[in-house]
Amino acid sequence: MAAADASAERAALAILTIDLAAIAANYRLLAAKAAPAECAGVVKADAYGLGVAKVAPALWQAGCRTFFVATLAEGTVVRGLLPDAIIYVLAGLHGGDPADFLTAGLRPVLVSRGEVDRWLAATGDNASARVGLHLDTGMARLGMPPNEIDALIADGSTLKRLRPSLIMSHFACADTPEHPLNREQPQRFRDALARLALQGDMKRSMAASSGIFLGPDHAFDLVRPGAALYGIAPLANQPNPLRQVVRLQAKILQVRRVDAGSTVGYGATHRFARQARLATIGVGYADGFMRALSNRGGVYVGDRRAPIVGRVSMDLLTIDISDIPEEQAQVGSWVDLIGPHNPVDAVAAEAGTIGYEILTSLGRRYHRRYLDAGAAPA
Amino acid sequence: MAAADASAERAALAILTIDLAAIAANYRLLAAKAAPAECAGVVKADAYGLGVAKVAPALWQAGCRTFFVATLAEGTVVRGLLPDAIIYVLAGLHGGDPADFLTAGLRPVLVSRGEVDRWLAATGDNASARVGLHLDTGMARLGMPPNEIDALIADGSTLKRLRPSLIMSHFACADTPEHPLNREQPQRFRDALARLALQGDMKRSMAASSGIFLGPDHAFDLVRPGAALYGIAPLANQPNPLRQVVRLQAKILQVRRVDAGSTVGYGATHRFARQARLATIGVGYADGFMRALSNRGGVYVGDRRAPIVGRVSMDLLTIDISDIPEEQAQVGSWVDLIGPHNPVDAVAAEAGTIGYEILTSLGRRYHRRYLDAGAAPA
Repeated sequence: MAAADASAERAALAILTIDLAAIAANYRLLAAKAAPAECAGVVKADAYGLGVAKVAPALWQAGCRTFFVATLAEGTVVRGLLPDAIIYVLAGLHGGDPADFLTAGLRPVLVSRGEVDRWLAATGDNASARVGLHLDTGMARLGMPPNEIDALIADGSTLKRLRPSLIMSHFACADTPEHPLNREQPQRFRDALARLALQGDMKRSMAASSGIFLGPDHAFDLVRPGAALYGIAPLANQPNPLRQVVRLQAKILQVRRVDAGSTVGYGATHRFARQARLATIGVGYADGFMRALSNRGGVYVGDRRAPIVGRVSMDLLTIDISDIPEEQAQVGSWVDLIGPHNPVDAVAAEAGTIGYEILTSLGRRYHRRYLDAGAAPA
Repeated sequence: MAAADASAERAALAILTIDLAAIAANYRLLAAKAAPAECAGVVKADAYGLGVAKVAPALWQAGCRTFFVATLAEGTVVRGLLPDAIIYVLAGLHGGDPADFLTAGLRPVLVSRGEVDRWLAATGDNASARVGLHLDTGMARLGMPPNEIDALIADGSTLKRLRPSLIMSHFACADTPEHPLNREQPQRFRDALARLALQGDMKRSMAASSGIFLGPDHAFDLVRPGAALYGIAPLANQPNPLRQVVRLQAKILQVRRVDAGSTVGYGATHRFARQARLATIGVGYADGFMRALSNRGGVYVGDRRAPIVGRVSMDLLTIDISDIPEEQAQVGSWVDLIGPHNPVDAVAAEAGTIGYEILTSLGRRYHRRYLDAGAAPA
């Protein structure tokens, strides 16, 4: 480690370790599971908060060739990292000029007839202007609704001119295999594809992380995992086949004893029934460690849990270390806020949310340490 | 507006407007309220998510001369912006080398006897080495506990050598004026100050934003507002005397009609009882617009509320615009996620949290527009 890095780590209140080798391993597992479909990589939202500048090249190294982002701005960043990748922009054209997509070599996933017409008007017969097309089959969020799909079928020439390289839809309930939408949505997608009668080099895609685990009928030609790459369990209430990617460690800033009957933190929401030993840690909700974890979450000191007591504040939180041997929890000791005993999904459950939000909320003040894709597992 | 700015705004899915003139006005209001005490400015956590590079100079322009940050790294940034400011670091020395604080001209607020000893060992008789000292009076988070304060009093020479320029404590329940800790904590603080018998140029400080509104007895020599500068109401259930600072606007990406009985979003958590008109917006929890707002929050189209329907997803959310005239809610129309009708505190209440967390969660993908401190109010 360079001297400057060592100094930054020493002064850091918390260290976020991101295991690029685990991301690469997860990519390979998902690609094998989806084969013969192609496995793309979703790197929107700064690669789910983990840093697209490191994650996108690691995925490329692992064999990923097609990438999905949310916006034109994100796509431009990924293009700068990966000159030869195929990059789709999921928000469609939004306010962007079609020329901006062409200049950056990005393919918008068009969401409506209005966007189709805008794209064709701007790109005309430019053979290198490729796009995706999003058909809504039950998510009701983005994508052409049934009446627009019908109109597109009736008007065969528009689709012929558009020559989409991707037709996609998106599952609403893929993490819950038994949900009826997991049968209805692919059926609607197949019906639309049959009626659109598309030709040429075009990939069909429905499955994201969870969809890959719904079975081979759901993979079509291309799958689009995001969360699973980053270690989030794809199916509710089932074992997680992915490797953990993230570890969040923080340093104890201060240790104190408090008397029985005393309180801690804003609003004095926790009162101690007995004398207790507390530790204060320099991570708070401004670091994305959500205030919803107040009096609910916990951290690990080695393999022992220390509950969060009182409210999580902006830059600090307090844990009860009464049951932990003193020598293991002193000023300067490191604790796991996310780690082997409390992975992302577990922290999310305690916060009343999903692992995706824990990842995308990861703060900017952490010292970030990347384990290279070539390195040994953490 | 420059052409590049105009292009970035056009492609932006959402625009975050930060009113520096309102921050300056709030500073002046708080300073007048706290006078004759000095009014500092708290700019930790990137000025509560609003951008310290813009906010700190605006506060300096408004007359603020003393600033508080959380960490050494944050202090170094503020020092680069404000060469002549007094800057205190609230997390104490943490892992930083005392020499790093001296080099950057930062004053750590020492939290424990251990830190006092480390500081004195490193700085010796350096007359320019100034520090704050944090006494805990009931927050039990950071600061010297009673037994360490007693020991410091017994050992008069250490305090004499330390020569703190600031002695501070922190209220736990200042937003709830009737809470008994608001009487007990200042009493403990006064007792400790009397027994410490400090001399020289030293300021005493307890009140942050809410504490300023607890009355003149709580102001001591220096107050430390943060949240109130940024428009958050200082007292629960009372009118907010501060100006709003933040407006968050987003563009409608797509509009659709859905049939009665259909569902929207992940988990199909919202089912429409009647035919409805929906709009999709390019803001999600990866932008800090919390998933807790799923099926609870709302946005404003002009002065009409449109409820969020279904789950907030990573990059998108969906609103029901059935009751809004069609011409006001079309593709490209702008809506307020935070605005005159739904200020930060109101959004926070819907999300089950406090305005502080809404601000510090504000995402990195927004196009940020700053209204200059000299400009007219928004």
